[in-house]
Amino acid sequence: MKNSEQEFLKSAHGGDSKIGDINAILEWVRAQNDRVEVEVERIAFKDMTHWGFDALSGSLRHDSGRFFSIDGIQVSTNWGTISSWNQPIINQPEIGYLGFIVKRINGVLHFLVQAKIEPGNVNHVQISPTIQATRSNYTQVHKGRKPLYLEYFRNVKSDNVLLDQLQSEQGARFLMKRNRNIIINVDEDIPVYDNFEWLTLQQIKTLMRFDNLVNMDTRTVISGIQFSDPSVTCTDALRYLADSTETAKFEYESLKSVVTTEGAVHSINGIIHFLTDIKSRYDLIVDRIPLNDVKQWAVLPDEISRGDGKYFKVIGVNVAISNREIMSWQQPMIQPSQPGICAFVCKKINGILHLIVQAKLECGNRDIVELAPTVQCLTGDYRQPDSQPVPFLDYILGVSREQVVVDCLQSEEGGRFYREQNRNILVIADESFPDKLPDHYIWMTLNQLFYFNRFNNYLNIQARNLLAAIAFS
Amino acid sequence: MKNSEQEFLKSAHGGDSKIGDINAILEWVRAQNDRVEVEVERIAFKDMTHWGFDALSGSLRHDSGRFFSIDGIQVSTNWGTISSWNQPIINQPEIGYLGFIVKRINGVLHFLVQAKIEPGNVNHVQISPTIQATRSNYTQVHKGRKPLYLEYFRNVKSDNVLLDQLQSEQGARFLMKRNRNIIINVDEDIPVYDNFEWLTLQQIKTLMRFDNLVNMDTRTVISGIQFSDPSVTCTDALRYLADSTETAKFEYESLKSVVTTEGAVHSINGIIHFLTDIKSRYDLIVDRIPLNDVKQWAVLPDEISRGDGKYFKVIGVNVAISNREIMSWQQPMIQPSQPGICAFVCKKINGILHLIVQAKLECGNRDIVELAPTVQCLTGDYRQPDSQPVPFLDYILGVSREQVVVDCLQSEEGGRFYREQNRNILVIADESFPDKLPDHYIWMTLNQLFYFNRFNNYLNIQARNLLAAIAFS
Repeated sequence: MKNSEQEFLKSAHGGDSKIGDINAILEWVRAQNDRVEVEVERIAFKDMTHWGFDALSGSLRHDSGRFFSIDGIQVSTNWGTISSWNQPIINQPEIGYLGFIVKRINGVLHFLVQAKIEPGNVNHVQISPTIQATRSNYTQVHKGRKPLYLEYFRNVKSDNVLLDQLQSEQGARFLMKRNRNIIINVDEDIPVYDNFEWLTLQQIKTLMRFDNLVNMDTRTVISGIQFSDPSVTCTDALRYLADSTETAKFEYESLKSVVTTEGAVHSINGIIHFLTDIKSRYDLIVDRIPLNDVKQWAVLPDEISRGDGKYFKVIGVNVAISNREIMSWQQPMIQPSQPGICAFVCKKINGILHLIVQAKLECGNRDIVELAPTVQCLTGDYRQPDSQPVPFLDYILGVSREQVVVDCLQSEEGGRFYREQNRNILVIADESFPDKLPDHYIWMTLNQLFYFNRFNNYLNIQARNLLAAIAFS
Repeated sequence: MKNSEQEFLKSAHGGDSKIGDINAILEWVRAQNDRVEVEVERIAFKDMTHWGFDALSGSLRHDSGRFFSIDGIQVSTNWGTISSWNQPIINQPEIGYLGFIVKRINGVLHFLVQAKIEPGNVNHVQISPTIQATRSNYTQVHKGRKPLYLEYFRNVKSDNVLLDQLQSEQGARFLMKRNRNIIINVDEDIPVYDNFEWLTLQQIKTLMRFDNLVNMDTRTVISGIQFSDPSVTCTDALRYLADSTETAKFEYESLKSVVTTEGAVHSINGIIHFLTDIKSRYDLIVDRIPLNDVKQWAVLPDEISRGDGKYFKVIGVNVAISNREIMSWQQPMIQPSQPGICAFVCKKINGILHLIVQAKLECGNRDIVELAPTVQCLTGDYRQPDSQPVPFLDYILGVSREQVVVDCLQSEEGGRFYREQNRNILVIADESFPDKLPDHYIWMTLNQLFYFNRFNNYLNIQARNLLAAIAFS
């Protein structure tokens, strides 16, 4: 396995594409969009076939008990200024596949992507992994078609597994949800079905500069591919791919570089100490309560929402799509009240690029806090005069244009979230930016973030999304 | 912080002791034992002051709601042959300190140990960390004395933190319990109170060869101290300290050696794949149920137990001890039905020592499975004709004497477990031992075990106990 991993990482970065240049890919996505009809209309919960409110728990659930449910929770914590609250949350305990098949073509690794429709997508079709399948999905609870390429993942030999990690999803929306982020290699020729195409990692990263084009599932999987030259500075690291199509500049050195990176502000043990200290001091107690008892939220005939309109609402939709496993269905979705901002502030310290990482408690976290971007908030948070100031937000919104390396809108997963998008920003601070950070914030190098990203429940989805964008912006 | 870590690991291994030879230490423990009176008598639950059964949940709990409670759980899983069961379990959500203060004395790092009485200890006094304190304990819920040395841990500067990890405890007995395993350095002179003494790591490891002398909390903390020469073979590794008192033979090279260890059967990513695959396929669903509803268990006036006497019982005890924070108190304890066996089979593969590690599901696990010793079972399991065969158990019990490197009885934590001890065994298999392993078992090197041990909830307490014994046996 080790040899193929190394080869993978060497060949994944850069190289010639098969489909051609970015314009050809954009044209392909556009053509896919033209070929499908998508209709999403809001309906009352009672009109959702196979979905209903459980008499006992009040949860909004599928008759089969599978897929996911909308439950009520009571949260208690000694973190932050609000010590207890109620909210609805998505409960999806099954671990699904988010997987890519990769294959060496003309000496360069290509990723088999799907131009996939999801009902919640703002622009309908997005670049998606080869497979996105919940366990209910691939065990065919809904009697639809078996997901394409499933058998490659089910029957893969260990030697062909290049990456296989459990990664968390939005802790404010999901109760301890995780998915299996997996990349497998094939050597043989395989069929390329309708809507599928081979792209290089470089192309996928380039497509991430466009708003809402690369879906969340793609971004989380590729965030696991390590970026590794220990000597990279901010400029080199962040602008590398714009200037270069060489292969193999990025070697599989990341683990080694964690050890040899003399300039890191904190050691790995120091970062573990930072997390242990926080996890020891803060409690996160989440109890399930009946959905009807969720305070400040009302279960109405066609939505579950707060009187003040804050945060999000749960809605029911009827979906009709022409190129999906099932042509039409009903389901609940989450509709956000406003877009959010996820941003990292970076700075060169001791000659090495460091990022400001915050330990963030979210109610659905499996282990109290996860490592999050410097800023992660709803835009509504800071527009209201009574809200707490968000550290570093003013700085990020006020920096000069040339310090901004990434700035685009990225969609959340369109199978659960209705037209949710967050602004992803990455800025480079200059020398005058203070090194001292508030409590719960820590400087980490890129390699240290990649190091922790291999393990369960360290980096949250928002941090991983930005990580996916960083390497090649 | 990095410099002090490296110094720490260099100087922790070997060197001259302050107290003198092992006999002097044994004599000191004996003297401590002679100085105290210990009386533990079983009492009915109703005679336990401040403890009672909660009217709503049926849980056996302290009036303050703190310390711990005995709850009922319903477990469902698709792992193994038993798909669902009920049992009582200890619920102790607070994270406490298990901590050592270390200090360089005559150039060698010494650990401040306590000769500590715990009510459940078979031999009363055991070598314990500088501090063992639950949050209830150190916030003085029980109005006792503040734990000695607490202020050193509360006020420690990051630079003096040498190790700080959250580690799990027995997953079959505790519901997701974890403690903070911490080692801090002091440079200044500090008071050495009654019952405390400075010992070297080598001495602690040597004391682990004696039955029930080094307590579980000490063993889990020192299991985090990495053992690291990548070229060590089984003979060198396991017999090193018996022949040597040199300092600094073990360098802080373990992380590097994980990368450079060419001979490891699996890469780190390969081991993560092994775990991800298992965690994706198996469910562990644990629901709280009223203690009175726990099937096959009866809540009697003075014990909670099964009709067939299997596994363990919950008992009530009155404790009177002369050198503890409080002189006498009542509490529930867990009394096992029989001792257990925890054993690793090791084998040299590609010139490197490898251990057979199993992924083991236990109901109290925070993340479905943890890495466990090759064999971990109650002795009762394999003595009964109707029980499933335990892989590798016959091999371990049948190997020749010279293949056995570790074989002693080690106590579980005497604050919760009444006279519980497990046989800890480590055997070296010869060349003829097959490399192929059953499902859920994997070959790992010592360095790989240490690598994963830094992160939350990878190695279980039984694996860590054996790891603590390995380095210097």
